[in-house]
Amino acid sequence: MIPRDPEQLVALAREGSRTALARLLTYVESSGPSHGATAALAYARPAPYVVGLTGAPGAGKSTLTDRLISVALARGSFDGEGEFDQVGVLCIDPSSPFSGGAILGDRIRMQDHATNDHVFIRSMATRGHLGGLSLAVPDAIRVLGAANFRFAMVETVGVGQMEVDIASAADTTVVVTNPGWGDAMQASKAGLLEVADIFVINKADRPGVKETRRDLEQMLELGHHEWRPLIVETVASTGEGSEGLWEAIVQHRSYLEDGHINEHRRTRMRRELDKVLSAMLRSRVAELARGEAYERQVDSLLAGTTDPYRAAEVLLSEG
Amino acid sequence: MIPRDPEQLVALAREGSRTALARLLTYVESSGPSHGATAALAYARPAPYVVGLTGAPGAGKSTLTDRLISVALARGSFDGEGEFDQVGVLCIDPSSPFSGGAILGDRIRMQDHATNDHVFIRSMATRGHLGGLSLAVPDAIRVLGAANFRFAMVETVGVGQMEVDIASAADTTVVVTNPGWGDAMQASKAGLLEVADIFVINKADRPGVKETRRDLEQMLELGHHEWRPLIVETVASTGEGSEGLWEAIVQHRSYLEDGHINEHRRTRMRRELDKVLSAMLRSRVAELARGEAYERQVDSLLAGTTDPYRAAEVLLSEG
Repeated sequence: MIPRDPEQLVALAREGSRTALARLLTYVESSGPSHGATAALAYARPAPYVVGLTGAPGAGKSTLTDRLISVALARGSFDGEGEFDQVGVLCIDPSSPFSGGAILGDRIRMQDHATNDHVFIRSMATRGHLGGLSLAVPDAIRVLGAANFRFAMVETVGVGQMEVDIASAADTTVVVTNPGWGDAMQASKAGLLEVADIFVINKADRPGVKETRRDLEQMLELGHHEWRPLIVETVASTGEGSEGLWEAIVQHRSYLEDGHINEHRRTRMRRELDKVLSAMLRSRVAELARGEAYERQVDSLLAGTTDPYRAAEVLLSEG
Repeated sequence: MIPRDPEQLVALAREGSRTALARLLTYVESSGPSHGATAALAYARPAPYVVGLTGAPGAGKSTLTDRLISVALARGSFDGEGEFDQVGVLCIDPSSPFSGGAILGDRIRMQDHATNDHVFIRSMATRGHLGGLSLAVPDAIRVLGAANFRFAMVETVGVGQMEVDIASAADTTVVVTNPGWGDAMQASKAGLLEVADIFVINKADRPGVKETRRDLEQMLELGHHEWRPLIVETVASTGEGSEGLWEAIVQHRSYLEDGHINEHRRTRMRRELDKVLSAMLRSRVAELARGEAYERQVDSLLAGTTDPYRAAEVLLSEG
């Protein structure tokens, strides 16, 4: 029998219980009564090193993630530093919040590893988390950390703000592109430059690699970065280039460790705290809007005896 | 010398001073110290009847607005009800927040009326309003009401959420399309169905009117509306169809007056109050994030002695 108490669950998860880990992740996804206690325990432990993979549907993210799992486990550390013997993977498709299909799909694609004791794969959905996936994902990462994972990957379908939000939860963000994506990349240039630490040109056995690399280089010319994003070519279907991608990740990690990691993590903590604050205040608005005092203010507005600014102030001071 | 006091300005605006009216609108746009007093005075007076015109750039909204101004002034009432002898027009291009160009452009296009005493045309920009244009526009509409305008038009370039926000400030929303826009409309179907009370097929002297009408009809089949949006054909450049559009507006107004206007305005007031509440809470987050207590919480997060949820609760209870 698996307990329901977060403290006992964390202890079990640290001993390797996947069932306990899964339950803790459900707690952070659902934002239910056990969420607070789980978060407190999770944030008390160090976070794992997190690689985020993002890109449009069909770019080959899952297959690439699969390849990286193999390389990472074979290495067992980042260039001799930060040893690990297990990899946690969170798969996120914000476009399908209750994505039974995605869970199945990911499992099938990652089946090499699904039965591997050293790999934990979880598809995440928003089951009513206060701030949606953009808050649930960092919480889930910390839960992996509390369960002794020192390395984790987050795979996200790139869709606008969600891409940025989830990338901000990663230490190294990998943006996966394909040959011939010049126009598509042009359209989301600003967003890509903001999030990418590494660009992958996956399916690099297809024509158009040179042009895509040139487009990426030109895009990078426009930004001014202390860290200039690396460009790596891969063929995930054969595994070609996955060692090179791992080296690029190690290189970026070394850059961060070399004096930038604290700043990076501080920025991340600030961002997360802001999100929690906003989410709490949003739920406060929703709560106010359900009350009688709110309806009285709407009545006054319709009667012309108040204006929305005074009405809001009254509600906020009373509530 | 024009006074700075909102109360005196409203008195002058009611007597017909355009300078006083312009200053009041600047107050609501800028959300400065005079905003609160201006809002209080504006919301104490009845709102004008508002027709919103929205659509993609180049659809012919300005020319159509121009034509409607002429018809409205010639009629001087809605089918004998609700007399007016002046028309207020707010032009909004959310994509150019400091749109000197748009102001000039609108003035040139509407030059027939720019020097007419019975017409007041104003291009609006966000000059730091708390909640952006989606709050500044309803405030500006109420300022027009306080200045004795009984009929107003809001012309907006349709861009996603802003379109919906601004449409929600109108009593009758007119979505302007052109022949051959089937695909474009298909893409934003849900948004269009949500906002449109009337569809205009402008430039109806061009080929493709029949197909566009059929596309619109098909789209309307999908929705279930108590008010089924009307479809009107116009050629704004020649004025053809503008009388028909006015009749459609009058018809929709009669529908609203016939028992629906109170519900409609209540929904609008709720929406506006929610926006003000959210905006106030957002500025509260920004304020918190500037404080020392916030940095202390970030320190605790980095030290692993708190989690973002406890940290946010501490900040909200202390702040």
